[in-house]
Amino acid sequence: MSLDDPVIITCSISGALANREQCPAIPYTPAEYAAEARRIVDEGGAMIHIHARRPDGTPSYEVEDFRAITEAIRAETPDVIVNYSTGALGVPVAKRVAYLRELRPDVAALNMGSMNYAKYSSRRKDFVFQTVFTNPFDEIIELLRAMNEAGIKPEHECFDVGHVGSLAPLVDMGVLHPPLHVSAVMGITGGVPPTARNLATMADNVPAGSHWGVIGISRAQWMLVAAALTLGGSIRVGLEDNFYLPDGSMARSNGDLIAKARQMTEDVGRRPATIAEARVQLGLSERVAIA
Amino acid sequence: MSLDDPVIITCSISGALANREQCPAIPYTPAEYAAEARRIVDEGGAMIHIHARRPDGTPSYEVEDFRAITEAIRAETPDVIVNYSTGALGVPVAKRVAYLRELRPDVAALNMGSMNYAKYSSRRKDFVFQTVFTNPFDEIIELLRAMNEAGIKPEHECFDVGHVGSLAPLVDMGVLHPPLHVSAVMGITGGVPPTARNLATMADNVPAGSHWGVIGISRAQWMLVAAALTLGGSIRVGLEDNFYLPDGSMARSNGDLIAKARQMTEDVGRRPATIAEARVQLGLSERVAIA
Amino acid sequence: MSLDDPVIITCSISGALANREQCPAIPYTPAEYAAEARRIVDEGGAMIHIHARRPDGTPSYEVEDFRAITEAIRAETPDVIVNYSTGALGVPVAKRVAYLRELRPDVAALNMGSMNYAKYSSRRKDFVFQTVFTNPFDEIIELLRAMNEAGIKPEHECFDVGHVGSLAPLVDMGVLHPPLHVSAVMGITGGVPPTARNLATMADNVPAGSHWGVIGISRAQWMLVAAALTLGGSIRVGLEDNFYLPDGSMARSNGDLIAKARQMTEDVGRRPATIAEARVQLGLSERVAIA
Amino acid sequence: MSLDDPVIITCSISGALANREQCPAIPYTPAEYAAEARRIVDEGGAMIHIHARRPDGTPSYEVEDFRAITEAIRAETPDVIVNYSTGALGVPVAKRVAYLRELRPDVAALNMGSMNYAKYSSRRKDFVFQTVFTNPFDEIIELLRAMNEAGIKPEHECFDVGHVGSLAPLVDMGVLHPPLHVSAVMGITGGVPPTARNLATMADNVPAGSHWGVIGISRAQWMLVAAALTLGGSIRVGLEDNFYLPDGSMARSNGDLIAKARQMTEDVGRRPATIAEARVQLGLSERVAIA
Ligand SMILES: [Zn+2]
Ligand SMILES: [Zn+2]
Ligand SMILES: [Zn+2]
Ligand SMILES: [Zn+2]
Repeated sequence: MSLDDPVIITCSISGALANREQCPAIPYTPAEYAAEARRIVDEGGAMIHIHARRPDGTPSYEVEDFRAITEAIRAETPDVIVNYSTGALGVPVAKRVAYLRELRPDVAALNMGSMNYAKYSSRRKDFVFQTVFTNPFDEIIELLRAMNEAGIKPEHECFDVGHVGSLAPLVDMGVLHPPLHVSAVMGITGGVPPTARNLATMADNVPAGSHWGVIGISRAQWMLVAAALTLGGSIRVGLEDNFYLPDGSMARSNGDLIAKARQMTEDVGRRPATIAEARVQLGLSERVAIA
Repeated sequence: MSLDDPVIITCSISGALANREQCPAIPYTPAEYAAEARRIVDEGGAMIHIHARRPDGTPSYEVEDFRAITEAIRAETPDVIVNYSTGALGVPVAKRVAYLRELRPDVAALNMGSMNYAKYSSRRKDFVFQTVFTNPFDEIIELLRAMNEAGIKPEHECFDVGHVGSLAPLVDMGVLHPPLHVSAVMGITGGVPPTARNLATMADNVPAGSHWGVIGISRAQWMLVAAALTLGGSIRVGLEDNFYLPDGSMARSNGDLIAKARQMTEDVGRRPATIAEARVQLGLSERVAIA
Repeated sequence: MSLDDPVIITCSISGALANREQCPAIPYTPAEYAAEARRIVDEGGAMIHIHARRPDGTPSYEVEDFRAITEAIRAETPDVIVNYSTGALGVPVAKRVAYLRELRPDVAALNMGSMNYAKYSSRRKDFVFQTVFTNPFDEIIELLRAMNEAGIKPEHECFDVGHVGSLAPLVDMGVLHPPLHVSAVMGITGGVPPTARNLATMADNVPAGSHWGVIGISRAQWMLVAAALTLGGSIRVGLEDNFYLPDGSMARSNGDLIAKARQMTEDVGRRPATIAEARVQLGLSERVAIA
Repeated sequence: MSLDDPVIITCSISGALANREQCPAIPYTPAEYAAEARRIVDEGGAMIHIHARRPDGTPSYEVEDFRAITEAIRAETPDVIVNYSTGALGVPVAKRVAYLRELRPDVAALNMGSMNYAKYSSRRKDFVFQTVFTNPFDEIIELLRAMNEAGIKPEHECFDVGHVGSLAPLVDMGVLHPPLHVSAVMGITGGVPPTARNLATMADNVPAGSHWGVIGISRAQWMLVAAALTLGGSIRVGLEDNFYLPDGSMARSNGDLIAKARQMTEDVGRRPATIAEARVQLGLSERVAIA
């Protein structure tokens, strides 16, 4: 990738953990997802990363909820790239595989390794929470096999340099096929520290010819967006990752976040990829209707 | 320096080569310099880099023109940091030293090395111009001695990594005193290629404890501004370096360029240094009146 | 750290997993550990990293075995820096803390994070083994508190950039006190890929003023030794990490490995730190006799 | 290039500035050059970089001296890659072109830019000498056109990152044809500071698919050799660059230096390229006899 490539702007439309008391713009119902999708595409987003919810806003891993949301989004923005989360803590792999097999999104996110996953409070001088986030190789392989059978492109979520390095053996054993689509997830305590220099190293470890972007999960998000843009990468923003615009105001919609991301893209002399361009960059086929 | 430091925004207010037919906002008279200084400071600029001109716009290296411009600027924006160019091709060192000694600006720019200095046209498949830009060590030392005697802080303009490396022997021989103020000048063919990764290397070669920023001289300017902001550095924009905003429109004033630089600063979660903060960061004294 | 600092050469004298059928030089009895310590110190090693074994060679986490081995080593090489492993899979933290508290080695190794820990065979096109190596923050903190109480300096074993990044919150909460002693462990599939560029990034993330070195665990070990030497770091070799010299021959003693490490150190214009210099670099006190 | 590529070991056999009072092993006569060439090839060298001398040791730029030396070397080591210097200060380009056209070596060195070229003494707190080393683009192009006509492969001697960056416009205008053969020359005050990190940046700026190596000109030479070996590059040693082995003893022959370079190559798990392999890597044809 280079600075001459258009930038794929992805929107993490909903997440599963936050709720509308925290941020009123989070979509719950399929109709709300669709309205947000409209705003995302209008502002320059090409891909939508989806966690499903029930209409009351609680997280769901059921095929029917994913289906209803996806159909509503497709009805509103027919060609947008649909990307499903697969990374729920405490949800069995079989359940996560079920909605992939049934619904065949264009892309599915895949956590590429294990790590300490924590949040530290400098004010309290203590960890707010800390856990071990486990994504063993055998689970990664199981998910990849399911994606391969269903014709789904994986998005490799890499929280550290070693997660990027874990791609090579999987390519070698034939469960992964370049060009890859790699996201550097930065901002979790326990993962790679969120600096522009570390992002450059993450990108330098990505197999040649692959596409890469950044997912910033901390208050450093917008700095990381700028860093990826200057390093030749793509970007993700959205209410799952961060409710706030750089000026500290809360987004009234995912559209606000995408609009800011697009402006920052244009500030460095690049432009958003169209959905069609993004499909080519990621090696996706034209969209086939979901059964 | 780190991301927590406020960003010193410098404006290269005029340059000496371009004229008002190319860009109507370029100041010629002292009054025009002062009006631009007002806009620069209002938008967040803390330092103004000055090439003198006669009131008809032609370049000048005369004490009286530098004096008239400086006095007009100081009358309008009393505490702004005044930075003089010293780098004119074909102007003897003695002449450049004369206005430094007489007028004692806060800061004076100093080219830190020699290089091929060229402009290449990919369309014509040829160099538009090319020369050898010579700044030998003995000339650098002569200028530094004059600055030391006059209490002027040098701004080290480094067009390549070796120019940054040339600071160390000068510190060792006692003509340079840290903390230094180092600018990476990027975008000239013959100098360091204008990439975010190369800017990180330039910054990593700066002696510890020093201040650094970027000066982008090419169409990559705004990308370089964003890169410096994400790497913890300061930035310079202004009509000397680039007439255009990122959207391709011509600036109607230096103020437009500073406003865009400030917005990009805020987009990554940083803020412009006040003039007082910039003086502390650069190790400048409070301003003493020019005789 | 810089190229001007002498190089602390550490020897991982024994490990716990391999046996004498694989490499006849591995020490089992206290007397054998002592004889190896003699060779290590004679060839330029300053620190010895110890896993205890029973006299039949099986791994031990008992105070008495650590004590017997340590006393034998101290009798032979009185001032050598003694470094204990704490990282056994399946051994409760309480047991690992017991021998630290009782025997108070100069240094104890501490794994700084969780990760997938695997070995891949390109020939078989499959993983030879793979597990999740868990070192959660609460366990790290428990071990650090025990080390602090016993006056033991931790050696932070970092398998990825995020493990280095995990030092900062621990410093902030006051369980860690700079200068730190950080080791980049490279060569495990799942951890940071073993390249010179990635080692530079690991080192660049180490808190300023700290000491760092490399531990290479793969066939890339000797390349990583050379890389650390050129980047200003220290090094570890020893039968725990690798039985073989660069020419492919099996070491007849840890002394052979240390001698090669010392020669490579001298080839790049550096020299081994004496034991006394290493104690100063790591911020260790003079050795106090073990009760 | 990668760590899996064999390492092209080049020998700078003679230089032109030093003499036998400084180092008795420097060859003067064609027979002495040939004897050194024998030792170089026997120890693993694949390419010999030649400055011509008259039989009394004084530098020569005459076709006849280059011819006599080359014929003697070819008679002794028929397939070794012959590389001519072209960089003499004060010798007109026409003269340097004459021996290229007439003798058509496999490779000719080409300085890729201008710079301050100095030597600083920390003991004296002054520069021992300093000059501006001028290699303007028009001269580079003239030399390249001569090399192209004569079927000679240029070796691009780059003293700073900008010199590497200067390759791109020359490729674009069609006077340079990838894959290129790029040498990072490090250790001159005024050029890129001689660190492993800066060498990585130099290499990262080399156009994809090209071959690169390091030429260390300072007391940091052997450290730079190790750094290049760990970063995937090739290396040059020889009496032109440095008389001394890492242990401080003076080489009794170029063979001593090549032997040490080969040992360091093998220490990191790589091996010297055979002459035939080096010809393939550099894109050279089989050797054609010199008229
Ligand atoms: Zn998600
Ligand atoms: Zn200027
Ligand atoms: Zn161990
Ligand atoms: Zn030469």
